[in-house]
Amino acid sequence: MKTVSGGVCAAKGFKANGIHCGIRKNKTKKDVALIYSETMANAAAVYTKNLVKAAPLTVTKAHLANGKAQAVICNSGNANACNANGIEVAEKTSALVAEKLGINASDVVVASTGVIGQPLDVTPIANGLDALIAGLGDHSTDAAEGIMTTDTVKKEIAVTFEIGGKTCTMGGIAKGSGMIHPNLATMLVFITTDCAISSEMLQKALSADVKNTFNMVSVDGDTSTNDMVTVLANGMAGNAEITAEGADFDTFMKALNSVTVYLCRMIAGDGEGATKLLECTVSGAKDEQTAKTVAKSVICSSLTKAAMFGADANWGRILCAIGYSGADVDVHRVGVKFVSVAGEILVCENGAGVEFSEELAKKILLEKEIGIVITLGDGNGAATAWGCDLTYDYVKINGDYRT
Amino acid sequence: MKTVSGGVCAAKGFKANGIHCGIRKNKTKKDVALIYSETMANAAAVYTKNLVKAAPLTVTKAHLANGKAQAVICNSGNANACNANGIEVAEKTSALVAEKLGINASDVVVASTGVIGQPLDVTPIANGLDALIAGLGDHSTDAAEGIMTTDTVKKEIAVTFEIGGKTCTMGGIAKGSGMIHPNLATMLVFITTDCAISSEMLQKALSADVKNTFNMVSVDGDTSTNDMVTVLANGMAGNAEITAEGADFDTFMKALNSVTVYLCRMIAGDGEGATKLLECTVSGAKDEQTAKTVAKSVICSSLTKAAMFGADANWGRILCAIGYSGADVDVHRVGVKFVSVAGEILVCENGAGVEFSEELAKKILLEKEIGIVITLGDGNGAATAWGCDLTYDYVKINGDYRT
Repeated sequence: MKTVSGGVCAAKGFKANGIHCGIRKNKTKKDVALIYSETMANAAAVYTKNLVKAAPLTVTKAHLANGKAQAVICNSGNANACNANGIEVAEKTSALVAEKLGINASDVVVASTGVIGQPLDVTPIANGLDALIAGLGDHSTDAAEGIMTTDTVKKEIAVTFEIGGKTCTMGGIAKGSGMIHPNLATMLVFITTDCAISSEMLQKALSADVKNTFNMVSVDGDTSTNDMVTVLANGMAGNAEITAEGADFDTFMKALNSVTVYLCRMIAGDGEGATKLLECTVSGAKDEQTAKTVAKSVICSSLTKAAMFGADANWGRILCAIGYSGADVDVHRVGVKFVSVAGEILVCENGAGVEFSEELAKKILLEKEIGIVITLGDGNGAATAWGCDLTYDYVKINGDYRT
Repeated sequence: MKTVSGGVCAAKGFKANGIHCGIRKNKTKKDVALIYSETMANAAAVYTKNLVKAAPLTVTKAHLANGKAQAVICNSGNANACNANGIEVAEKTSALVAEKLGINASDVVVASTGVIGQPLDVTPIANGLDALIAGLGDHSTDAAEGIMTTDTVKKEIAVTFEIGGKTCTMGGIAKGSGMIHPNLATMLVFITTDCAISSEMLQKALSADVKNTFNMVSVDGDTSTNDMVTVLANGMAGNAEITAEGADFDTFMKALNSVTVYLCRMIAGDGEGATKLLECTVSGAKDEQTAKTVAKSVICSSLTKAAMFGADANWGRILCAIGYSGADVDVHRVGVKFVSVAGEILVCENGAGVEFSEELAKKILLEKEIGIVITLGDGNGAATAWGCDLTYDYVKINGDYRT
């Protein structure tokens, strides 16, 4: 597997663009993105499990019922959720895009992100469509910028892999960065590939992958109303279509996982206000679910997150979060290490503190990416979760988000 | 029922004191508190459900096995949790207190609060005991100060009530203010009463009450390792002992509830860094558990808490928190109002936004106590939960707690 440039346009037959159309007042911020496949693509998606679902998810779910799609339109600046005519606006958006591209409205994936509870005016999107489509090309970066909200960096990645002697490519873009605590689904992520794979196997791959990737990310414990991941596979790599499990499917899963893990780390590290990416790895759990529960509880703990912001090796808060996680753990066997490029340090063994150099701990915790390595001494279950620190800027960003 | 002064010393036969003994470096901060009953008291307690439990909880649980106690010793500045010899230190503390007071060690409730994972040296407590005991008197305020950690205000209350023609008194002290997210138990609260009530009925009253009071409080989602509430009832009011359910027990429950709700509001309003108390009331739920789940989800939402800090009527975040709560709710019937002494304002009806005056909303949300009033239109279940806003100071306090 090789990382390549090009994001969602790296795979054959995919073009993208992103522009400012006027949903946002700030003209320097793009607010709409379009991804287009030259040929019909098989498509799969997972959606937020929040009972409050944004209108575009309902519309997209209906459009993807046949496992096919050819375009993705996504606006930022307005979530199109909890308003009176959201479904109508999402359907109108799909219809306009379809008309201009000469495809069916039911082959359009529609998504939104931004403030909840405001009516979304379709006019700026309608007025911007000609420019958006005219500019379609190798512009993954513009699309990645078009879906950003409080994200400080664009999130895109692409990889190549071999299937049946053919080189396939897969790329993705994502947006974070607040209201991130996926529940059996995830935030907004759009992935494209030219690999030939059936809709059924594509859905299977995606559903299996998100359990270990996007579902293991939390920025603030708030599961969004607008979470969605979609994958479009247009088959233009020319490989024999993957229609069952086997070596090719495993290769595809591996490629998908490398794209999703990269985006998870980007989303967590660019969490609202974050200065650090936290990666909590748990091993020695009695089973995988126990490891997941522990890892997620630690990266969700406000006190642990604040301690990491302060580069404070306050490991007692990690023990505390393990203890209240609900997982079946023998707390007297727990070990905790902090790891970064500056080194590693053991701070807790058998559930109790060990003497350690505060100076070295500080040095390790001052880095941008911190590993919290937990051993449970109780079996072979392992898991990884990603989060970020809790900072002044998180409060600043969210204390007055709407203005 | 009447509110009176005196805190835990308001009830007959109870004395208290709090001093600086040297656990904390800062000599201006008290770090140990003692409550003493002239006669043996019936006692009840509930404890944190965190698997990581501080040593004093284990020792106290053993001491209260017979439902009797005569003294409470509690230090701040060190949680006596996740260290090597915690049990030994908690037992030694009880033994020293018992010896000096001429009572049995098994009649001493021992508690600690502060940093997790540090060895607790018993020496400062041992050296301070003579002064602590010599100063026993009507000093509830000193005791309340002795158990404070990051609390900015002491938390004490007392009420009088009538049982069988006798005036009974009940008082309590509590500490917050971070790592507050009780799970079937609660933070540190000590309640005293001169009402005569059997240990069994006292435990019954306490266990029933905490489900609607302390278990409905969250400051930061982190369930503490040291949570505990105890009630001591020494019977000196002279009423006929309450040994069964009935009118007297109901009166006792009502008195207990007025003390615990007061302390809940104090703890939430003085959450770490908080500038506002949030009180979320949910009605119209299909059952009480649904109402509780919704109320707790809203007051735990980091995004809602940050919006309240910014006095931003961003009600979409409340809908979002209702939607991911796991409760069975018809989101299309949800209504949301904000209420404070400055007025009230409807912001959402039938799951969608209504037009409202941002100016009035701002005025309402700039107050110190904010009601978030949610109607679900689905039955008669109701519940209240208490929390606070998320502020810069929460991050500041917890970014470097140990230094």
